[in-house]
Order: sequence, then C-alpha cells, then structure tokens
Amino acid sequence: MTKAASVSAAILVIGDEILSGRTKDKNIGYIADYLAKIGIDLREARVVGDVKSEIVAAVNALRSRYDYLFTTGGIGPTHDDITADAVAAAFGVDIIEDPRAIALLLERIAPEELNEARRRMARIPRGAALVENRISKAPGFWIGNVVVMAGVPAIMQSMLDHVAPRLATGVRIVAQTIPARGLREGDYAAALGDVAAANPELSIGSYPSFRDGGFHNEIVVRGRDAARVGEIAAAIDAMLSRLSERRREEI
Amino acid sequence: MTKAASVSAAILVIGDEILSGRTKDKNIGYIADYLAKIGIDLREARVVGDVKSEIVAAVNALRSRYDYLFTTGGIGPTHDDITADAVAAAFGVDIIEDPRAIALLLERIAPEELNEARRRMARIPRGAALVENRISKAPGFWIGNVVVMAGVPAIMQSMLDHVAPRLATGVRIVAQTIPARGLREGDYAAALGDVAAANPELSIGSYPSFRDGGFHNEIVVRGRDAARVGEIAAAIDAMLSRLSERRREEI
Repeated sequence: MTKAASVSAAILVIGDEILSGRTKDKNIGYIADYLAKIGIDLREARVVGDVKSEIVAAVNALRSRYDYLFTTGGIGPTHDDITADAVAAAFGVDIIEDPRAIALLLERIAPEELNEARRRMARIPRGAALVENRISKAPGFWIGNVVVMAGVPAIMQSMLDHVAPRLATGVRIVAQTIPARGLREGDYAAALGDVAAANPELSIGSYPSFRDGGFHNEIVVRGRDAARVGEIAAAIDAMLSRLSERRREEI
Repeated sequence: MTKAASVSAAILVIGDEILSGRTKDKNIGYIADYLAKIGIDLREARVVGDVKSEIVAAVNALRSRYDYLFTTGGIGPTHDDITADAVAAAFGVDIIEDPRAIALLLERIAPEELNEARRRMARIPRGAALVENRISKAPGFWIGNVVVMAGVPAIMQSMLDHVAPRLATGVRIVAQTIPARGLREGDYAAALGDVAAANPELSIGSYPSFRDGGFHNEIVVRGRDAARVGEIAAAIDAMLSRLSERRREEI
C-alpha cells in the first residue's frame, strides 16, 4: 500500500472540568504520542466546555481543516454529556437510539437497569460507525472524519486502539534528540538557525527545561527521511561539540 | 471595588513539541487552577505549532472573544521562537528591540555574551508592557488583552504571579464536590438532570474516573453564589443517599 506523505489530525477535548482546573487533561499528550507513532501528524488541539454551540463550532472548524478530528469527553449518561448531540448537529444529521449500541450496553447492564439515562449512551448520530469500548461497553462513534471517544483516559485509550488499524496513515515522522552539552540556547541559536534555514524539509526545535537553577536544553530534529534526520542530527551534534569546546577555552 | 460578574479568558499554547507528544503540557492545568482561584473563567484553550500564520489566526480569534488571552511558549532566542513576531503581526504593530528588555537581559547575561540570538529575546511589539521573569530575566509582555509568557512551567508561573495583581477579576466561582457513594452515573443521572434543569445559574457536572475495574464518580456543583452552591450540594448529597439506600434494599 502506498502511503500519503502526510495525514493530519486535530484533537477536541470537551468538558468544563478541564477548563475549571478540576481535572488535568492527560488525553492530548497520550493521543499526540500515539498518532506520531502510527504516522498521523497532530496539528492542533482545542479544549471547550460543555456548551453545545461551542462544540458544534469547534467540530466544524477542525473537521474541515484536518484529515481527522478526535474528540474526548461528554459521552456518558448525565445531562452534561452533550457531545453526541453536538456532533450530530455539526453534521446536520439526526441522532437516533442505535440498536447496536443498546446491544452493547446490555452486555454490561441488566435489562431492568437500562433506564432512560443509560439509554442516552446509545444515542448515536445516524450513519455513524460504533467505536468499541472494551472497558465499560458504552461505545464511541465515528462519523465522516470525526472519531468521538470517552474522556476517561483508560476508556479513550481502548477506543483509540480499536480505531487505529482503520485509520489512513502517512509516512511516520522520525525524531532524534541531541543534548546541548551544557550550552545555553543563546550560545547555539545562530548556528542552529542556519542549519534550520538550510533544511526547510526538517523541523528543528530547541527545548529548554529549567531545574536546579539552570537550563538543560535539548535539540530535536524531526522529518520523514530517517537518513536525512540522522545526518543533520550528527551535524548539529558536531556543531554543539565545537561550540562547547570553544566555550571551555574561553573560561 | 465592585467586581464584574464574570471575566473570561482563553489560553493559547504554542509549540511543535506539544503536538508531537515530546513535551506534555502542564501549563493549561496550572493556569486553569490559578485563574479559577482569582475569579477569572477559563473558557477555551488551544494548542498550535510553531507556524506564524496559525499563531496569528489563533491570537486574533481568541483575543476578540474573551477578556484575556494568555499564551505560553515560543519566546526564547532560537529560530523556532516566533511568538513575539506573530503577536505583533496579529495586532498590526511593529516589533522593536526594547531597551527595557535589553536592560533586563544584562542583569543575567554579560555584555559580551549578548549576541544577536539573545537580543531576539528583547524583541517586543511596540506599545507592550513587559512581564517580569524572576527566574531567567528574559521578559514576557502584555499587549492589549494578550499576556505572552514563556513555555517553561517554572518561568510561566513566575510571570503569571507578576501579572495576576494587575488583572481585572470577577466574582469567584465556588465549587463543591459530592462523592457518589458507590452509585454509577446511570443510577442518578435522571435525578441529577432534574436538579441541573431547575438551577440553570449553577454548573452541575458528573465526573467518572475508572480504577480497579469500576467507576468512582463525583458530582461537582459550581456557581458564584456560595450559599446556593452549598444548598444544592446538600440536596444532591441527600438525593444520592436515598438512591444508595434504595439500591442496597434492592440487592
């Protein structure tokens, strides 16, 4: 199978609890890693609250710009779970109580416990495929290029495993990390900028972290041509080595 | 001082490293907590890569919708640090080498080390106020309703402390959390939905977490009237107690 050079994606995290600070999102980082590994480029992420008009607007903005949109959150049985309705509205389709979803719920819930609230979890936009939830059965769904998943990380991860083999993927981006040998960003910024300008097909970033009163920097080279990434990473490493040597001589 | 009923904000996280999964964002959660405590409602967050046109579009979309926009990332000395230029472009103002920022950099950097790359950290949109960085001196800035901060969490946090006393704030939202007494969401969803519908001035959410093979749910009541929040939280607690009792009788 030939692969597209690149396949793009966005994430939409839905939930007041993220914006209030109550819950710290772990899904963006997890999905970012996961998509990178299978050859899909995450290009944007957004977090919105439990407001239907906001969800509809974000779904439509993101699904039209990227090859895929992954959403998390808002598909449970309570009144604040409005993602399915919002996605149906975004696509302009009906929302129905899906018999396939009811059957899945009945694998975990006794028939006498399948009350109206729980039936809400079977409300699926017409035409959507279901996304399996191995943990608590209530499914996510996939409509057009939008994959709708739970917000609870373990369940979201199970759903992502279910859809991953069915996603179109591109050539994976390869990354190499080069430690900056104790140099500060300002020591190598000019030289690194020259390398980046000469290699526009690569993404070259410098990432500082701060601990024990000092910066500890790393440079990351990313691209689809593994040989080229390796070559430029080696050139940057040699450049840092020279700068580091020169710095020691100056001291 | 009378306070506005509500002051809104958005966060824009800027950086390829978040979208590639290399760096896990910790700033959204921190800022969300911080703003909630001082009486500012976080209403949206976005993550974009190091692409000028994307940053400009996101800055303009968010600054026009919310009272404040806080950005993190992209203000260092390397070629991939383009936030200041993008914000200047978003506001349609020049970017200048700011003598106040140069003076701050010279508190940490020897004059002979203030090379062209480090001078990039003094490039500030014309008309912006500087935001103090107690950790590594290179300042953030504040222009219009946009506060531009570093991406390194310790530095971002220092900058937020600097700007916080200068922000307009609203009446703080008070939250109460009620444990769901072992009930599943579907057990109380209908009753909780009725409470939410009867109290549209409050935000009532149900938050499941999954561990040890089961859900552990909590209900959160949020609002600006602390007495009313307490009253409704107590009513929900009593409702859960009745449902839990009935459930035990059924078993």
